[in-house]
Formats: sequence, structure tokens, C-alpha cells
Amino acid sequence: MSYNLLKGKRGIIFGALNEQSIAWKVAERAAEEGAQVVLTNTPVSIRLGAVNALAERLGTIVVPADATSVEDLENLIDKSLEHLGGKIDFVLHAVGMSPNVRKNIPYENIDYGNYLKTIDISALSFHKVLQTLYKKDAMADYGSIVALSYIAAQRTVEGYSDMADAKAMLESIARSFGSIYGRRRNVRVNTVSQSPTMTTAGQGIAGMGAMLDYTDKLSPLGNATAEDCADYVVTLFSDLTRKVTMQNLYHDGGYSSMGISANMFED
Amino acid sequence: MSYNLLKGKRGIIFGALNEQSIAWKVAERAAEEGAQVVLTNTPVSIRLGAVNALAERLGTIVVPADATSVEDLENLIDKSLEHLGGKIDFVLHAVGMSPNVRKNIPYENIDYGNYLKTIDISALSFHKVLQTLYKKDAMADYGSIVALSYIAAQRTVEGYSDMADAKAMLESIARSFGSIYGRRRNVRVNTVSQSPTMTTAGQGIAGMGAMLDYTDKLSPLGNATAEDCADYVVTLFSDLTRKVTMQNLYHDGGYSSMGISANMFED
Amino acid sequence: MSYNLLKGKRGIIFGALNEQSIAWKVAERAAEEGAQVVLTNTPVSIRLGAVNALAERLGTIVVPADATSVEDLENLIDKSLEHLGGKIDFVLHAVGMSPNVRKNIPYENIDYGNYLKTIDISALSFHKVLQTLYKKDAMADYGSIVALSYIAAQRTVEGYSDMADAKAMLESIARSFGSIYGRRRNVRVNTVSQSPTMTTAGQGIAGMGAMLDYTDKLSPLGNATAEDCADYVVTLFSDLTRKVTMQNLYHDGGYSSMGISANMFED
Amino acid sequence: MSYNLLKGKRGIIFGALNEQSIAWKVAERAAEEGAQVVLTNTPVSIRLGAVNALAERLGTIVVPADATSVEDLENLIDKSLEHLGGKIDFVLHAVGMSPNVRKNIPYENIDYGNYLKTIDISALSFHKVLQTLYKKDAMADYGSIVALSYIAAQRTVEGYSDMADAKAMLESIARSFGSIYGRRRNVRVNTVSQSPTMTTAGQGIAGMGAMLDYTDKLSPLGNATAEDCADYVVTLFSDLTRKVTMQNLYHDGGYSSMGISANMFED
Repeated sequence: MSYNLLKGKRGIIFGALNEQSIAWKVAERAAEEGAQVVLTNTPVSIRLGAVNALAERLGTIVVPADATSVEDLENLIDKSLEHLGGKIDFVLHAVGMSPNVRKNIPYENIDYGNYLKTIDISALSFHKVLQTLYKKDAMADYGSIVALSYIAAQRTVEGYSDMADAKAMLESIARSFGSIYGRRRNVRVNTVSQSPTMTTAGQGIAGMGAMLDYTDKLSPLGNATAEDCADYVVTLFSDLTRKVTMQNLYHDGGYSSMGISANMFED
Repeated sequence: MSYNLLKGKRGIIFGALNEQSIAWKVAERAAEEGAQVVLTNTPVSIRLGAVNALAERLGTIVVPADATSVEDLENLIDKSLEHLGGKIDFVLHAVGMSPNVRKNIPYENIDYGNYLKTIDISALSFHKVLQTLYKKDAMADYGSIVALSYIAAQRTVEGYSDMADAKAMLESIARSFGSIYGRRRNVRVNTVSQSPTMTTAGQGIAGMGAMLDYTDKLSPLGNATAEDCADYVVTLFSDLTRKVTMQNLYHDGGYSSMGISANMFED
Repeated sequence: MSYNLLKGKRGIIFGALNEQSIAWKVAERAAEEGAQVVLTNTPVSIRLGAVNALAERLGTIVVPADATSVEDLENLIDKSLEHLGGKIDFVLHAVGMSPNVRKNIPYENIDYGNYLKTIDISALSFHKVLQTLYKKDAMADYGSIVALSYIAAQRTVEGYSDMADAKAMLESIARSFGSIYGRRRNVRVNTVSQSPTMTTAGQGIAGMGAMLDYTDKLSPLGNATAEDCADYVVTLFSDLTRKVTMQNLYHDGGYSSMGISANMFED
Repeated sequence: MSYNLLKGKRGIIFGALNEQSIAWKVAERAAEEGAQVVLTNTPVSIRLGAVNALAERLGTIVVPADATSVEDLENLIDKSLEHLGGKIDFVLHAVGMSPNVRKNIPYENIDYGNYLKTIDISALSFHKVLQTLYKKDAMADYGSIVALSYIAAQRTVEGYSDMADAKAMLESIARSFGSIYGRRRNVRVNTVSQSPTMTTAGQGIAGMGAMLDYTDKLSPLGNATAEDCADYVVTLFSDLTRKVTMQNLYHDGGYSSMGISANMFED
């Protein structure tokens, strides 16, 4: 399926690890829709994952970058502008990690060094991406930047821990920078608040299966998958959504607007 | 411009009056994107407006219907199914009117007969559309239904009066019915909260010009126009947004996420 | 327990039926805090309930009124001003009923005559109360008006049906009229979004027990009871909350800010 | 005026600098309402401000503490428990500072070292306060913890810069920790989103006067003052609000629920 929605557009996709990744699906769909993309991830994720294979298939390059390093981001953007042959039309930020969650450190006994890493990787990295793009004037007029978020930013999901605070901050950065980027360069900045998704990161979380069952049951349309998310993100990169900015957009089968469903009380 | 996003899809568009109408633009864009649409409006709006000319241009029919009349809606849906030759893929509800606003009756001295008319026309009509479609099983699987709303549903806009309450109710209906329609038929129901737009209805409102200037200034991307809105609604009708439901989606150049902008204090 | 928080204040309490009613508890607590209150309910509720006994105990009167009748409301306010000997400092609106819910008519097969009754009783009655108070200039400076709401106004609770739409409208009315009443008379208008509560009305709803268990489990502090609600409403009537207006205030043990709790997946 | 609302209660107040501070007013009002409080601030704020004079007047102590230092917080809590002679019933967190704002560094050219300081001082310090209280089991059953926030956490206020992101994170911390503290110890955690207030911090901000005029005009009840805020916070510390938790409570004269007011277009 292709509508050529992104024909001739150029993009940078952060966070593709393997074919379960939302970023992977977005890269594939963006390419199907006619875009050229540059892929990026941390060196260790590139080594452990399969992003090089994806790049080969899409006929593009992978530029290693730690999204918390401004220097790496500068290099990434320079390389992307060069490889793509023009300004960037869209960017996907799908980056997040909490050392506290990984190490099963509970939120009420948190390690603050870890906490600042969570913030730096999962939220501040988005500001760094935005600011570096802005300083280099690397975005095309009417470009679109999307970061992936999660409803824990609004409603506490036990076990999601400091990632909730990071996502709240991420969404705030989208608004704060979106105000500037919109006014001065017509660039829009939004977050997509996606259903919980069984990516590699998700697989490591205890109770993830039960949680996905629960949200799938409560959501009238069921959980949105990584493929669904890629479809949606493609619309946000397209020229058809040019006046949507500074929004947190729920892409979750209706979950966010559900309170109580009768089938929650059934076996 | 056409992506064939709605190729082969069938839709019903309420509320096109003349070429300033958002519904008019949506009908045009939907047709450009490959859809067949049936147009509808009240008999008086059909007579006063230009919707017949639009129908002619799009090679379709206009079915007169008062959206507050279940009988009219039944007839509309029957005729549409027949004309379009299959189930309905998308519906736009762009219907609203307040006799209190028209007659300049202030909100603190409201006429309750008028108030119930506002509610019936601007909100309950949406339930009637949904319920009639549902009873007739007229929507195709993964269909999409959109109603137009306005931010006054969340934040008081002086002079918008009982329309604010009607829009709050409209958005609630989208959630309430969306829960059912999603779970049972995979149909999504959303509202688009659009920038104030200078339609024929808007032109009659005192101070509308000053208000549009203000929101245009405050919105980082400026007010979204009727054309912008049509582009956006097309994405919501497409297969790329199948997991978005029960949402109120701001389409407003960022206005809804702005608090205070420095240029509000400039001349 | 008494702090004399409402010493010398005069109020009108709608909706006390029997000692399970939130309104009953509010009337008791307001009296304990030093206020004089007038009680009101429909003639049939007065006959079936026990509000006369409460009035006797509090040394006050019951003025029968159908809250959908402006004439009745005018009489109520006149009688209250006379009985209380001065302007009104606070009003509680705890009025709601859906014939569709009572008759187990599902939301997708709703009767529109019933629907308009739901709206008139549960939402528009609040505007009528506000407008009648306003026209009679019956509220004291810095007065406080509260209506009871429920989170179904934001998130769909299956089975709550058209009451969700009515509550959304009720909350909008609080904002719309609160804007006017605040600016011109310093009167504040808020809604309290209360935990589901096992009142007489609640007892009639199928599955209410299971729902209360669920929300109690999910809410970190458990469901708020009618007594808790009375305590909270007393603070909103007091002089300590004079700048809180046009808000929907969740009083629910934290439920509204919870997404997922581990104990939801336990037996 | 005193209702003895906080009779016998013990509290810790962060952030009183001088008599313009909201924290100062809260300390005064809490004492009037019968509470004993311990005051705290950074050593430099203690030296530059007048908090020692307030302590003398209230017959209490000032414990110097940098709210970003867990060690200082441990000492503060130990000293407070000792001085107050029992567990803590309430805490006010009124702490915030952005080096980027102070140095007029624009948000699109931000210094990330400064940004992390903003976060640490204005948001993470709240987690540190909560976690230290929790680990020491220092809060009494049904205690209440409040942090001051600002609407820029939801809607961009130009010039508020990284403080917006910090406040969004602060509000998320209140929810995340509130979930745990509520469930395990019946302690509630909320944020109060206060009108812009002309404190010493506020006086340093360019354009603060124009902004206060604007919000005062738009808010139906006008801006809430520091004194108003103290009254409100006292209700949140009292036993009358025991089921309110994980909320962000607007205390702003209605500003947050206003869209557009006619008087915005007048001279």
C-alpha cells in the first residue's frame, strides 16, 4: 500500500532496533510512502539490533549517535543533510530508557543518578534534537517532528516509575519548543501517546503481558500495534496535518477516553 | 493534489452551505482523494446556499435532511446507501446553530426553549446520526465519523454562549457512542476542535474579526483555515488512522497549548 | 467536629433524599460548621424520602421544587431569602436522573424524549438555578455554588449512558456561567467529580457493587464516601477558597490520575 | 481569622524568603490555624531574606537545607520531628529556580548544564523530599503534601522556558509518588497551580507586570494573591480534604478555564 504521501520528503528516524520497533515500522512505511530516511541509534543498539539490515533494504545509511550527545547529534544532522541532499522534512524521536526500571529499583527508593539518566535519555534528548536542528536551520519549512510518548505521563501506571515523569517532561518540551519552532519556521512538534506495545524493550518488563491484555480489553478498538502507529505517524509527517502542533495525540484504540467497561468484570 | 487516500470510499457530508463552509472544503478534498460523497443540509440551507452547485460539480446528489429529525436521517442514509452502492466509510457532522446567539440573548438571560433547540441541533443531532447509522448497520467496517467542535467546550469564550455547552455535549457523545461503535463494529468516532473560521455563520458574529486576529496571533502556526481542516479530516477518514477514536483533536495551529505569547502585548 | 467554617452563612441544598445522599451529608456538615440551610427536593422525593426529618433536626424548612421549573426555583429562592434572612452564600446542586438508565434502554437505542429529560433534569436545571439566582441577585458577594459531577463526563463508563453527556454539559455550564458570575458578582461556580457512591440512586444500578470494588481498589486512597464529600464541599463553601472557580475538582481518592495498578491483576 | 483548622498539626514549609513569598503566607496562616511549623530554605536565601524574623514571630526554628541535597533533607526531617515532637502532618514545597531564565538564555539556545539544575532544583527536589519523608516514615497517617506549580506546565508561556518542563515533571512526580504514598500510608500529594504572583522571584522577570495585568483581566475573579493561596493551601492541609490526591488544582480566579473574554479587546 502506498499513497505517495511523503513523496520526495527527507527524514531522520531515531530508535529502530529490530522489526518489533515502532521506529522500524515508521521507517518502512515512510519509505513506502516515498520518503528517503536516515536511520540512527546508539552504537550498542546498532550492534545488538538489526538496523543495518533495514538500512540496506531501504538503500540508506545508519548514522550512529547517542541522542544525549549534542556533538553526536550535530554529526548526525550534518551527515543526514548531506546524504539526503536537502533539508529535513520529518523526524521521529523514539528514544527512552530508565536504568531504575531496568534494575527493578522501585520509585520510592529511586537512585537519583539513574533518574537523571532517565531524564537525559528519554526527555532532554528530545530538546537536544530540536535545538540542534534549529541551530543548524536543518528543518524544511512546514516540517514535522514527532516523539513517542505514553499515557503514564497523565495517569500513573505502576512500575513505569520515573519514565512517567520523563514522558511528562517530553510532552512539555514538545509544547515549549513547538511554540518557537512553529512561530519562526512553521515547523510542527507533536507527541504520539501510543498503546503499550510489545517491543524488545517491552518484553523485558514484568507483567507486560497482563497489562497488554488489560488495555486491549478496555480499548474499544483494541491496542494499537506498531504497524498502526507507523500508519498514523505517516499522516503526521505528511502535508495534510500542517496546522497540528504542540499536541499530545492519543493513538490507543480509545483507551485514553475509557473509564470502565463491562468486560473488565468478566472472566 | 491527490494521494488517492480515500479511493473507493463512500461518505456523507453534513453542513456544506457555500464555498466558505468547512464541510464544502471537506467534500471537495474527499472527492479529490477518490471518494464518492453524498451531500446533505436542511432544505432552507440548500435553498439559500450553493450546495446544489457543488453536487453538480462532484457528480453527486444532495439529500435534504434536518439533522434533528430521525425520519429525515433514515431517509438520508437509505438514499446514500443506494446512491453510493455500498456501506458508508465516513461521515462528517458539521452542524450547529444557537437561536440564543443569533438573537443576541445573553447567556445569563437565556431562553430555555432556544437552549433546547441549540442542544438538539448542535449536539443531539450527532447522536441521532450515530444511532440511525448504527441501527441500519450502514457503516462499513473500520469506518470513520467526525464532528466539528470548538475549544469553547473546554475554555469559556464570551459570546459563544450555549454553543459551548452544546459542544461539550457533542464531544461527550463522540466518546459515549465511540465506545460502543468501536467495540462492536470497529467504527471510530472523533471530534475535531478547529480554529475559529470565517464561514458564513462566523461572519454574523459581532467581534469575530477581532477574535480571529487574536487567535491568529497567539497560535504559533496561525489559525487553521477551512482548507487546512479539510486536509486534516481527510487523514481521519483514511485507513491510516484506524486506531484513533473517542478523541477531541485540536486543529488550531497550536492555540490550545498556548498560554501567553510576548506578541500579545505588542501593538 | 466543627471549625465554624461556615459560621453565619446561608445556603440552599438540593437533592437530599435520605441519609445515604451526599446532599444530606453536606447539609449536616454545613449546619455543624455554623450555616443555616434551606433544603429542597421534588415533591415526590420529599414524600418518598426522609428530608422532612432532616429539616426538623436542623431546625429549618423544606421548600418543594422541581429544579427544571423556573417558577419553582423562583419560589424556592424567595422563600429561602425570607427564611434565612439574607442573601445566599452557598448552593449545592445534587440533581440528576436519566429515564433511559432507569428503564435500561441502551445508549445505542436511546429514546430522545427521555434523553431531553435527562438533560433537563441533570444539566439544564443547573443553568436554571444559576440564572434564577442571578436575576434575583440572590447570591451574596463571594458566594459559592457547587454541583456534583462524575468522571464519566471525561471517560466513558459503560452503562452510565446519557448521564455522561449530561455531566459533560453540567461541567460546561459551570464554566460558562462561572465566567459571568465571577466577573460581575465575585461568585464562584465549580463542580465536584465524586467517586461512585452507594446512594439510593446508585443501589438501583446493575453492577454498581462490582464497579465500586474496582474503583476502590484502583484509587490509592480508596473511594471517597458521601461523608468525605461533605467535608470537601464545606471547604469549597468557605471563605478559604474564594479564588477557585470554573473548575471540575476530582474528589475520588486519586482514581482520576490512576492508569494501571498492579493490584488490578490480583485476585 | 482562625478556624483552628490545623490545630495540633505539625508541618514543614519550604521556600519562605520574605513577606511576599507564598510560603511565608502559608506559614503564617498555618500558624494562625493552630499548626506548628518548621521553616526551611537554602543558607543563601536565609541570609538574604527575612525568614529568621518569621521564625521568631512564629516561635519556631529555621533549618537550613538545600532541597537538592538528600543529606540536608534528612537532617531537616530529623530536626523537624524532634522540634515538633511528632510526625509531620503537612509539607509545602515552594521551590523553583531556572539559571537559564535568570541569565536570559532563550529556550532555543539553552545550556544543558543549567537545564539539569532547573530540573534538579524545581522538580527532582520534590521527589527527594517525598522519598526522604517516606524512607524515614516521617509523615503522619492522612498527612498532606503540596507543591506549587504553574499553568505553563500545560500551556506555553513565552519566557518561562525550562521552568515549564520542570513544572510538568513536578506535577508528574506528585502523581507518581502520590499513588504509592496514598496506597501505603494514606498520605495525599497534590500540586496547586497558582496565578502568577508578584513575589521577589517574579519581580526579576521582564514583562511580569504586563503579564499580571493580562491574567488579572482575563480571570473572572482576578489573579489569586499569595494570601488567597495560603488560605487555599490551608484547606488542603486540613482533615476536610482527605480524599483529594494526585491532583493539579488550579487556584487562579478562573484563568485556566477561560478562552477569550470581551475585555481583552478593550483598552
